Amino acid sequence: MTTEAACAELISRLKRAHVLGTVNGLLSWDEQVNLPPDSADLRAEQLALMAELQHAAASDPRVGALLAELEGKDGPPSCATATAGTPGRPGNGPARPAVAPYPLAAATPDALTADQQVVLKYSRRDYDRVTKLPPEFVSEKARHSSKAFHAWAECKGKSDFAGYAPFIERHLWLAKQEASYLGCAAAPYDYMIDRHDPGMTAETIGALFAELKEGLVPLMSEIVSSPVKARAGLFHGFPVEQQRTFLHTVTERLGFNYRRGRIDVSLHPFCEGSGADIRMTTHFDEANPLNSLFSAIHETGHGLYEQGTRIEHQGTPLGQAVGMAVHESQSRRWENQVARSRPFWRFFEPRFREMFSAQLGAVSSGELYLAVNAVRPTLIRVDADEVTYNLHIILRFEIEKRLFAGTLAVADLPAAWKALAQELLGLTPANDREGVLQDVHWSGGMFGYFPSYCLGNMMAAQFWYKAQGDLPGLDEDFARGDFSRLLGWLRRNIHEQGRRYDTRELVKVVTGDALTPKHLLRYLRERYLPLYRG
Amino acid sequence: MTTEAACAELISRLKRAHVLGTVNGLLSWDEQVNLPPDSADLRAEQLALMAELQHAAASDPRVGALLAELEGKDGPPSCATATAGTPGRPGNGPARPAVAPYPLAAATPDALTADQQVVLKYSRRDYDRVTKLPPEFVSEKARHSSKAFHAWAECKGKSDFAGYAPFIERHLWLAKQEASYLGCAAAPYDYMIDRHDPGMTAETIGALFAELKEGLVPLMSEIVSSPVKARAGLFHGFPVEQQRTFLHTVTERLGFNYRRGRIDVSLHPFCEGSGADIRMTTHFDEANPLNSLFSAIHETGHGLYEQGTRIEHQGTPLGQAVGMAVHESQSRRWENQVARSRPFWRFFEPRFREMFSAQLGAVSSGELYLAVNAVRPTLIRVDADEVTYNLHIILRFEIEKRLFAGTLAVADLPAAWKALAQELLGLTPANDREGVLQDVHWSGGMFGYFPSYCLGNMMAAQFWYKAQGDLPGLDEDFARGDFSRLLGWLRRNIHEQGRRYDTRELVKVVTGDALTPKHLLRYLRERYLPLYRG
Repeated sequence: MTTEAACAELISRLKRAHVLGTVNGLLSWDEQVNLPPDSADLRAEQLALMAELQHAAASDPRVGALLAELEGKDGPPSCATATAGTPGRPGNGPARPAVAPYPLAAATPDALTADQQVVLKYSRRDYDRVTKLPPEFVSEKARHSSKAFHAWAECKGKSDFAGYAPFIERHLWLAKQEASYLGCAAAPYDYMIDRHDPGMTAETIGALFAELKEGLVPLMSEIVSSPVKARAGLFHGFPVEQQRTFLHTVTERLGFNYRRGRIDVSLHPFCEGSGADIRMTTHFDEANPLNSLFSAIHETGHGLYEQGTRIEHQGTPLGQAVGMAVHESQSRRWENQVARSRPFWRFFEPRFREMFSAQLGAVSSGELYLAVNAVRPTLIRVDADEVTYNLHIILRFEIEKRLFAGTLAVADLPAAWKALAQELLGLTPANDREGVLQDVHWSGGMFGYFPSYCLGNMMAAQFWYKAQGDLPGLDEDFARGDFSRLLGWLRRNIHEQGRRYDTRELVKVVTGDALTPKHLLRYLRERYLPLYRG
Repeated sequence: MTTEAACAELISRLKRAHVLGTVNGLLSWDEQVNLPPDSADLRAEQLALMAELQHAAASDPRVGALLAELEGKDGPPSCATATAGTPGRPGNGPARPAVAPYPLAAATPDALTADQQVVLKYSRRDYDRVTKLPPEFVSEKARHSSKAFHAWAECKGKSDFAGYAPFIERHLWLAKQEASYLGCAAAPYDYMIDRHDPGMTAETIGALFAELKEGLVPLMSEIVSSPVKARAGLFHGFPVEQQRTFLHTVTERLGFNYRRGRIDVSLHPFCEGSGADIRMTTHFDEANPLNSLFSAIHETGHGLYEQGTRIEHQGTPLGQAVGMAVHESQSRRWENQVARSRPFWRFFEPRFREMFSAQLGAVSSGELYLAVNAVRPTLIRVDADEVTYNLHIILRFEIEKRLFAGTLAVADLPAAWKALAQELLGLTPANDREGVLQDVHWSGGMFGYFPSYCLGNMMAAQFWYKAQGDLPGLDEDFARGDFSRLLGWLRRNIHEQGRRYDTRELVKVVTGDALTPKHLLRYLRERYLPLYRG
């Protein structure tokens, strides 16, 4: 079989699994947006059957045979490292500089092109993750996650950590099992991190977070001790229909293509779909118009990433996002660097006031801008502002690291949480509901996921300064309501690259530097200090 | 294998194919209700892949083996007739009285129960239809339908029958081929009819329609020549949101369960889904509030049928509708017998006026009721009222019958159409766009489908008088806004029966009589003559 033929067949099989995945995605979206309340049983059956079919397509032995054939042409090394996806991989340890593997070796007759190598590397990675886990393990994890979710919801309500602890314990065990099935028994937390952000390790993250913390804690203190405070209770009576119209105008102007996507209402905002059909959601509160606006801009950032991937590569690694952290770098750039900026509001404030003249009559421009950039430490991560949010993540990373290292017992989690919350946020939870029980993630065994949020913030800032350097006059663009040059830059440098680079490689290729928290710290200081120094 | 075990496995496989079908249904609904305009390519891929998977599940050889095993226990005869589904079947010819085959032979140890026999009979029928057609034939028909649809749309625009004729010709050939694959080469039109309405034949329909025509033409003439006319241009400025609220109130009161269904907006109204999740649609026109209301009530009738099937039988013949005609009998009863009645408006008129007081200020009760029951012959079927609608169907049946008999050449269709339109409706189309090119059905090879609409009208009336006899005081119920006794009667007698009886058997079992147009004629005379005789 020629390389061309093997690749073509591989891609056609990947696309088949992808299309099934998009059907699943639509079922999930519909479940949260449209499903009549008593139709949940049928939806559960539909989702279970479709998951089974998607799994069958993704684990098709013919895919395995094609991968083996292509690896024979390409030589095993790059695939072996991609399979493990753990330390030891080139460019992964903090001591070694990140390398840009693209362009890869030039194609020789019947050898793989650079693009084909990317497809091969990540298809192998995905295939192993689907096929190396025994079916009984997969169903046990699914069953346990379902039980753990209900236990979490109940225990959170009662602020009863002891009842929930055995479920975390079991999930930890399952995570280690999973890592060992994938050949990563020696570094299970790295395995969990790499699942979400290819190329990342706990050691790398630890170093980045330590540096970030050092700058962030004093910055937070200075802001908190400032006499300048955002006024509470500024907004009320913002009709939902008008909020919807305004939000649509804003997100469309940012570049979201409503001919390939839509926004609806759900309890928790999310963004689902591929570049060909993006479904975002938001929710409305008449007393909090900024909440739905910023959550919609956040989801728009995710949507713009997906819409920016190349349509001809949908379903292959060349048309997929790198991982969670890069995804967050996109959503958070639009939400924070762009939409909390003065130039953005220079353009949109008059439009906001025109639509809500009665509601905003008594709100000054200064008050509005301060409300957009309010900072106030809170115990609850999802309520946090963009300054203190990162500290919530550092806390969780610290705990996960210790749990996996065996230096923290599950039973001691609440105490460790309280100590870290006091150290990082200057606040102590009165109970576990506003402490260790607040997040859903661990009930699904989603360890290694939290760091992505903060890594995304770092990347967003690092890409941001690079874009500003490359594109002089961006502020003036924004003040005119023109975001197209920024979007074009993101498309070329990030969206259209698919998975050509892993998380850290991408930062290096795009900005010329390794990932560092310096840019995030600089950005936060530039944004918040002038405001809070008065 | 015991009967119990074989049936259980058969049912579980049927349900699997059914769940895939519900996913397909949701994709189609979403396509018409939500799909962003440029996401159509992905949707086409999703639908094609899901159709392939559904076909694979429905044609699973294991289903064939289970059917053969169960037929061995049951004896072949009843299955053989179900397979053919064509004349010669007991109770099918008009000369023989319709027989109610239920209850079937009492279950003996390991013999099939009556319910199991129903499952076996229709599973065999469905399985043969899925497996006896060669895959190349199925894809050729699909391809031709797609081409024919586009040709139809183009030729209709240009009123160019000659360009469309070869597509009908080919579809006729394909229909005959299909019938012969299913062992019905001798009676291809009967095969097409039986596909939509099990147990029906062209001969039966011909006799019913002849009798109906005899009563209908003079009735129409009397109404048309009446000086009483519904006033045109009565309505304008009905805000969509209020129409939506009113329509929701009405359909919910009729009994539609919005905890297991919803109504949205699409270009063409339809009803999709199974009893577990029904998605209806409507469309709104500010100058025509009755249009969206009646179309929503029509779809509600379809929805109530599906919601009335037994949830534990979803996906098996015991939880499925009999066919198109019975489905139409449900939608049309609610739309016509119920919602065009005086008692219905006695209850809803005050509510309608309360919601639209400004718009209805100058409209008298008499004018409103006449608008609800306007009769005016038109050349276009979809614009027709419930009196003349049946004549449109008789016309199409007459043409299809002659086409299949070979007594009408495709080239002569326009002339035949014009002659029949003049004879039946007293109108002659000025061109083929308002004549033979008006309907989409034949472009999809959907011969034998039109009769269902009119058979549904007949059944609706026949069931209606039976229900009135069984439930004295229905008018008083309606005038109080209570439709529950009627719905309960329909559930027990029709919805919960699934496919226990075929089309004609059901009428016989429920009403004690064979299907006849007498009740429809009686109903139309009782409804319209008092109104138009002034």
